[in-house]
Amino acid sequence: MGDAAMPLFPEAIEAYVSPEGTVIQMPLQETERIYGFGLQFMRTNHRGRTRHLRVNSDPKEDTGETHAPLPFWVTSEGYAILIDSARPLTVYAGSAVRVDSKRPPAAKNRVDDADWMATPLSDTLEVLIPYEQGATVYLFAGSASGERSESSLLDAVRRYILFSGGGVLPPRWGLGFWHRVSIHANAEETLREARQFRERNIPCDVIGLEPGWHSHAYPVSYEWSEERFPDPEAFVRSMAEEGFRINLWEHPYVSPEAPIYEELLPYAGTHSVWCGIAPDYTLPEAAAILERQHAQRHVNIGVSGYKIDEVDGSELTGNSWMFPAQARFPSGLDGGRMRQIYGLLMQNITERAFKKKNVRTLGLVRATNAGGASKPYVLYSDLYGHREYVRALCNSGFSGLLWTPELREADTAEEFIRRLQTTCCSPLAMLNGWASGTAPWSFPEYESIVRSTIELRMRLMPYLYSAFAAYREEGIPPFRAMALEMGRPCEKQPTDQDLGQFDSSSAPYGLYGEDFSIDDQYMMGESILVAPLFAGETSRDVYLPPGDWFEFHTGVRHRGGQFIAYAAGLDEIPLFVKDGGIIPLMPVRPSAPRPGEKVPLEVRCYGSKQCVFRLYDDDGETTAHEAGHCRWIDLHADGTSVMHAELSQRADDRAFTYGEMKWTYMQSNG
Amino acid sequence: MGDAAMPLFPEAIEAYVSPEGTVIQMPLQETERIYGFGLQFMRTNHRGRTRHLRVNSDPKEDTGETHAPLPFWVTSEGYAILIDSARPLTVYAGSAVRVDSKRPPAAKNRVDDADWMATPLSDTLEVLIPYEQGATVYLFAGSASGERSESSLLDAVRRYILFSGGGVLPPRWGLGFWHRVSIHANAEETLREARQFRERNIPCDVIGLEPGWHSHAYPVSYEWSEERFPDPEAFVRSMAEEGFRINLWEHPYVSPEAPIYEELLPYAGTHSVWCGIAPDYTLPEAAAILERQHAQRHVNIGVSGYKIDEVDGSELTGNSWMFPAQARFPSGLDGGRMRQIYGLLMQNITERAFKKKNVRTLGLVRATNAGGASKPYVLYSDLYGHREYVRALCNSGFSGLLWTPELREADTAEEFIRRLQTTCCSPLAMLNGWASGTAPWSFPEYESIVRSTIELRMRLMPYLYSAFAAYREEGIPPFRAMALEMGRPCEKQPTDQDLGQFDSSSAPYGLYGEDFSIDDQYMMGESILVAPLFAGETSRDVYLPPGDWFEFHTGVRHRGGQFIAYAAGLDEIPLFVKDGGIIPLMPVRPSAPRPGEKVPLEVRCYGSKQCVFRLYDDDGETTAHEAGHCRWIDLHADGTSVMHAELSQRADDRAFTYGEMKWTYMQSNG
Repeated sequence: MGDAAMPLFPEAIEAYVSPEGTVIQMPLQETERIYGFGLQFMRTNHRGRTRHLRVNSDPKEDTGETHAPLPFWVTSEGYAILIDSARPLTVYAGSAVRVDSKRPPAAKNRVDDADWMATPLSDTLEVLIPYEQGATVYLFAGSASGERSESSLLDAVRRYILFSGGGVLPPRWGLGFWHRVSIHANAEETLREARQFRERNIPCDVIGLEPGWHSHAYPVSYEWSEERFPDPEAFVRSMAEEGFRINLWEHPYVSPEAPIYEELLPYAGTHSVWCGIAPDYTLPEAAAILERQHAQRHVNIGVSGYKIDEVDGSELTGNSWMFPAQARFPSGLDGGRMRQIYGLLMQNITERAFKKKNVRTLGLVRATNAGGASKPYVLYSDLYGHREYVRALCNSGFSGLLWTPELREADTAEEFIRRLQTTCCSPLAMLNGWASGTAPWSFPEYESIVRSTIELRMRLMPYLYSAFAAYREEGIPPFRAMALEMGRPCEKQPTDQDLGQFDSSSAPYGLYGEDFSIDDQYMMGESILVAPLFAGETSRDVYLPPGDWFEFHTGVRHRGGQFIAYAAGLDEIPLFVKDGGIIPLMPVRPSAPRPGEKVPLEVRCYGSKQCVFRLYDDDGETTAHEAGHCRWIDLHADGTSVMHAELSQRADDRAFTYGEMKWTYMQSNG
Repeated sequence: MGDAAMPLFPEAIEAYVSPEGTVIQMPLQETERIYGFGLQFMRTNHRGRTRHLRVNSDPKEDTGETHAPLPFWVTSEGYAILIDSARPLTVYAGSAVRVDSKRPPAAKNRVDDADWMATPLSDTLEVLIPYEQGATVYLFAGSASGERSESSLLDAVRRYILFSGGGVLPPRWGLGFWHRVSIHANAEETLREARQFRERNIPCDVIGLEPGWHSHAYPVSYEWSEERFPDPEAFVRSMAEEGFRINLWEHPYVSPEAPIYEELLPYAGTHSVWCGIAPDYTLPEAAAILERQHAQRHVNIGVSGYKIDEVDGSELTGNSWMFPAQARFPSGLDGGRMRQIYGLLMQNITERAFKKKNVRTLGLVRATNAGGASKPYVLYSDLYGHREYVRALCNSGFSGLLWTPELREADTAEEFIRRLQTTCCSPLAMLNGWASGTAPWSFPEYESIVRSTIELRMRLMPYLYSAFAAYREEGIPPFRAMALEMGRPCEKQPTDQDLGQFDSSSAPYGLYGEDFSIDDQYMMGESILVAPLFAGETSRDVYLPPGDWFEFHTGVRHRGGQFIAYAAGLDEIPLFVKDGGIIPLMPVRPSAPRPGEKVPLEVRCYGSKQCVFRLYDDDGETTAHEAGHCRWIDLHADGTSVMHAELSQRADDRAFTYGEMKWTYMQSNG
């Protein structure tokens, strides 16, 4: 990305060691907004809030705690900060005012001054890293010039993601549709349920098994249940023959019944979880035991990946099941830090088992931390608010994270469809309805809408796959908040009602520090703006950034730089393409193309600009692309009807996918 | 209380210092229940939970955090523990299982074993005190014999309260009715509003002023607003002439406009709160400045006490306004510890100003910590769930705390009455409805029920005053959970519904570790069982401990040792008196008796036992009782109709209150 001027004067950053740990202070500008801190559900702009960056398996409150509490943030001043620490730490993001402040806010009389604020504007951000006697702080510049520009926010994030090794490129099938079957399902029942997708012509690539595939679960054995899966190899093979990959649920707590238990026991922490041991996977010996077992029993017979659960147990809220902060591990690590990195450790081990077989994986994980952008894992949660899910989708991009707003269950068909539309416009499109028995055909009158929604996901695969390739090579998050698209804060205008009133019981300090970030729409790939509808809505306001925008399905043009009201039927999730957007689409198929299988493309060009889309292609499954076995095809359009494709770089003769292209020019004035 | 055998073998307690602090471990028995941890709203029995004992101004979650997070607990094995630390600390109350456990729970298969538990039963309680290299642990024995007995739980609590200096004896007027007026009210409006009580014949003793009495508030000046209160002394005097005491709201954050600001500045912490300084009141010099100002400007002109707000700002949830953990104070204390004790420090300073004038005070405070039982302060909260309020009333007694389930507002007249009944059967009976404009006459059709409810409070004053004297001299909490009355856990039988089901979104780990403690009824004074009704209810189940019980108003007998269904009209809060209970009642009056004013008593005897009630008497206002100027009168009944009063101890000729006694024998079989 080239050199960049320092976005903050290093001398503006102060730090000292106190008896409680390391304290870092840095200046904040008056209108500065602060984004990031990992997978955040409750707000987008964290200015004025105290953020506790601690794993939490049940992050219902606006504290900063979450499954993936990254000590990383990016500000509207065009720089990003990473604190290199595994400690649960606290960031006072302008929530604490120092008496020696250079620009102190003025005291106000709450009794009769309407401008009184519960959190006065602070000109300092402070970080407390408990126990540590110093810490490394990374500062990422935004735009190359060091000045604020349209891309300064995105550029700072890109530098962080590239510093983390670049974003992950999943296997092509990972971008298909995912479905999970009952904890009690056996091999035959699983196959029968999967075949329903084929019989009903609903695309599906991945079938997930829940804890019942283990011979013992909670804690786990990592071995197949002989009762439910007597011949795992044959099961995985017969699923593969019908185009289904198998994903296995697991967690890190090893059952006394697991064959590897005795081997792992010397590496166990002092405390058990559900009566299973918690191995110290910072030790290579322990990691090697798990990796070997996984390779032998799962990866080598064709299992495609894992869903790694419960690496995020917190102490603060929710159930008390995780090892405590004072737990000790053989490496000397305490429970507090181990909790922060357990998700990363499990990702490393499982990823390695696939890498050694030269195949890619994509899985799910409930917790991660900084530096995990290149890991082939998508985050999920037991929370379930649809709006929180969309907000998390917006926020995840700030920190180089992937998040699935999975569909689990719904009170009504309408809610089911609206949630399905969101998950189909996300990094991982999954129905995880096994607990309630919810399937794509649970609302029979709406099955055709369900089908067409999942078909849209399948058709977008070439576009999304290219977006992930740009994530890998250029560090551009494939799903991004509007602020990353705009390069600056993207907010609603607060109304009087938003600012609210004092209420002695529900809001004793008034409503304050509200977040007006636009957090219910986001960018998917280079040029599609997604504005999901929520149950109960038949229309919504959508903010279109400056420039022209075109409805995805019809090409109807809208002027940007404003909010528009947009109505949509139940069968439509509002999608807008920016001027100059080129969208390569694939025909509907039951599952993703295999290596070398040729698919024709429909290439849609929107708007009147001269433009290029960089289409990425490789075999879609192996790690051969890492050795250069991939190609980029530049799709050119000149804004009228002249379009062409041009092979740009690193082409070779491997098993590529894209064949014939049909071009469509989409533009209408409605 | 005499000697007691050690309830735990000291060698069963293990402790070590880790890099993160001090860890203490102690054994737990299989059926052991754990109560206490200060003012807890969310549960009563904490076994199986992790408790974070950190102040929190908005304690909505079941984490252990609260306004008064005492590192003190009492167990059903008949002992209590106090950890002497101002650090926010964590107690794993059987929520963490050690791999080296002597009685480890067995691993279970969650897939098909209904007995699988999210938190397996641990045989160890662990405490982590961050940063500390050791700590003092106090162990309080229960019954004198060291064996479990009916009183073992209560005795352990009593020892702790006596160790804290004994419970507080409030002035008599403190047990009257309290009302708070608008933040904008001036002297004239306050007097006018107070007179409504007299005009409507509703008893009232205390009128509270909210922040607007200050010349500057949030942060505060501690000086009277010249605009609203041009002549404070005349105002307080004219209020006193009509029988009203004045209580002043305040908080610890000093406005730059306060005359004492410059004097306090050298003692300020590094961080401001609402742009006011936070003085280090562990330093006697700083405390003396505030005490002197309070004495001169408030106490000496007759102000009766304070409502000390916002000494409990937390970092974890709610608004971000408190100084941060890394704040430093001139004494060397950090913000984390200062927050834990700020409430106690403010209580000490204000109490001293009254003590020096030889008068008692009673006030409100939003935070306290261990050892505060003797302080003349009652806790309150911005939370407002009626059931949580009653649970807090039950729980407060375990830790030697007083709590007011204040009435603020209500959606319906019914809710208003039900909440009023609860607050009138609590340590401090208060309507704090100024923000919503709610007054006792806000529901005109129900004014007579409101009046009779507040009148009941007034009539009970001799009974309650004696209960507080027993709190002071014997350490018996005047308001107690049923477990303290029974000497052992007092619980409901869980139904299948209680145990609940797995739900992938609302209860992903199932419902577990539920608390079946009876937490919706409690003991008030020696012998009255209070079973409040909640809005929407016309009857409820009441658990009556073994023995006979009598309805307070009618004397109707019920057999105990069982749950009974009890229906009551809107005008009744169900009250039951235990067999042998003697209740001295006073005639209704506008406000509490002044020193030497004589009041006749109606003495009610319930049941058939021979029994004695120890009636306490003194001048009701000054500190003369501390020098022995008080008397105890033993009221005897023999279970038939022979009753007499007998002066028992420490009588003298000071300004006593109780005159003629009329005896009533209450017993009927319905």
